[in-house]
Amino acid sequence: MQLYQHGTLANLVPGLFGGTLSIHDLLQHGDTGIGTLSGLDGELIILNGTVFQVNAKGDVRVVDGSEMVPFANVHHADFTPVGELTAVNDAALRERLAQQLISLNVFSSVKLTGTFANVTTRAVAGQKRPYPTLKATAEAQSVFTQAEMHGTIIGYYSPKLFAGVAAPGFHLHFLSDDQQFGGHLLHADVTQANLEIQAFEDLDLHLPLADPEFQALDLDSDQIVSDIELAEK
Amino acid sequence: MQLYQHGTLANLVPGLFGGTLSIHDLLQHGDTGIGTLSGLDGELIILNGTVFQVNAKGDVRVVDGSEMVPFANVHHADFTPVGELTAVNDAALRERLAQQLISLNVFSSVKLTGTFANVTTRAVAGQKRPYPTLKATAEAQSVFTQAEMHGTIIGYYSPKLFAGVAAPGFHLHFLSDDQQFGGHLLHADVTQANLEIQAFEDLDLHLPLADPEFQALDLDSDQIVSDIELAEK
Repeated sequence: MQLYQHGTLANLVPGLFGGTLSIHDLLQHGDTGIGTLSGLDGELIILNGTVFQVNAKGDVRVVDGSEMVPFANVHHADFTPVGELTAVNDAALRERLAQQLISLNVFSSVKLTGTFANVTTRAVAGQKRPYPTLKATAEAQSVFTQAEMHGTIIGYYSPKLFAGVAAPGFHLHFLSDDQQFGGHLLHADVTQANLEIQAFEDLDLHLPLADPEFQALDLDSDQIVSDIELAEK
Repeated sequence: MQLYQHGTLANLVPGLFGGTLSIHDLLQHGDTGIGTLSGLDGELIILNGTVFQVNAKGDVRVVDGSEMVPFANVHHADFTPVGELTAVNDAALRERLAQQLISLNVFSSVKLTGTFANVTTRAVAGQKRPYPTLKATAEAQSVFTQAEMHGTIIGYYSPKLFAGVAAPGFHLHFLSDDQQFGGHLLHADVTQANLEIQAFEDLDLHLPLADPEFQALDLDSDQIVSDIELAEK
């Protein structure tokens, strides 16, 4: 089983927000995943082959195949049911998820479907060229909260060895069952949810080889290295 | 175009030398590459679908499909001729190669065929369980030198962002045209050689998901992190 990743977290850090792969091409590699659109425009949640965007106003819409992504992860869903989580607060959730992984050295997807309380998400605002840094963009993000939500948490666990390539640890997005609320997950207390996990033998990392900005990027600069470390926190 | 990598440098650092993929399976992903055998037994050079091993005695033999690797890189050769290098000494070689890459952010393979002087290679000695660390094994390696050799330098450039996953920078092996001399390249002055380069849009990183030792490995331990940094030098 394979996890497909287009781009790297490191590319976003200095502001390479331009889309370098179409949604149509991305979906050839999976029906489930997360990502962001060109310009770092919002948060993507991909379920059953449909791509939803949560923008900085909190609006949710279905994304067209011609739109472009600078960074995304997808895989073909083939989850293994793990069990039910009941009354797990946010502080304990990531540890509980980590305990269920095959190994902390393996890329995995986690999916939680059920009822959640105090659901807090964020969505970044789309930027125009010349793009700012990821740090500057993150400061302008919107935050949304709902007291109770039926929905899906979907995302990935990346081993620490791949810090900079991906955000180490869990990177989770949320979409409500009514498809009206979602974003990058900042907080959720699990009331009751079914947990499914899929571990990956292969990471297919796809880089924007032909992109002149990517080619010229000096990822070894001290500023970028320290900003990558900040972005991973 | 895709680079296939089985395992990570980080796995080798604490001594995970057991083979976790057969040569037969490895060759499904390429006809050209480098690697090592189970137990860290020697240096592999893969050219035109044939796998050669240089062992710690300096002997070269063709490896059978049933033998196993803990770490290897292969790709399907589709090189672009870059030009001829003449009278480039070892001190300047890697810089000259780096100048010819599309980008320092892209995985690439380099292949040099021609005549080389002062060719120095090493080969690690196969280890038995319980395996020592990579550092302890490296101290027991053999070094070989030839004043002049007709042969092939084959290997890969990995971006610094992937330090720990691979050795950052160039990782080059050598095989003589008469298939009697080779190993991990420590030094070579180029007398005259043709340079070919192949850049990769995708890295397919294949991890030994089912291996209990890999699953249990604590890659976050301070000792392993500092040993990975040493191994990359």
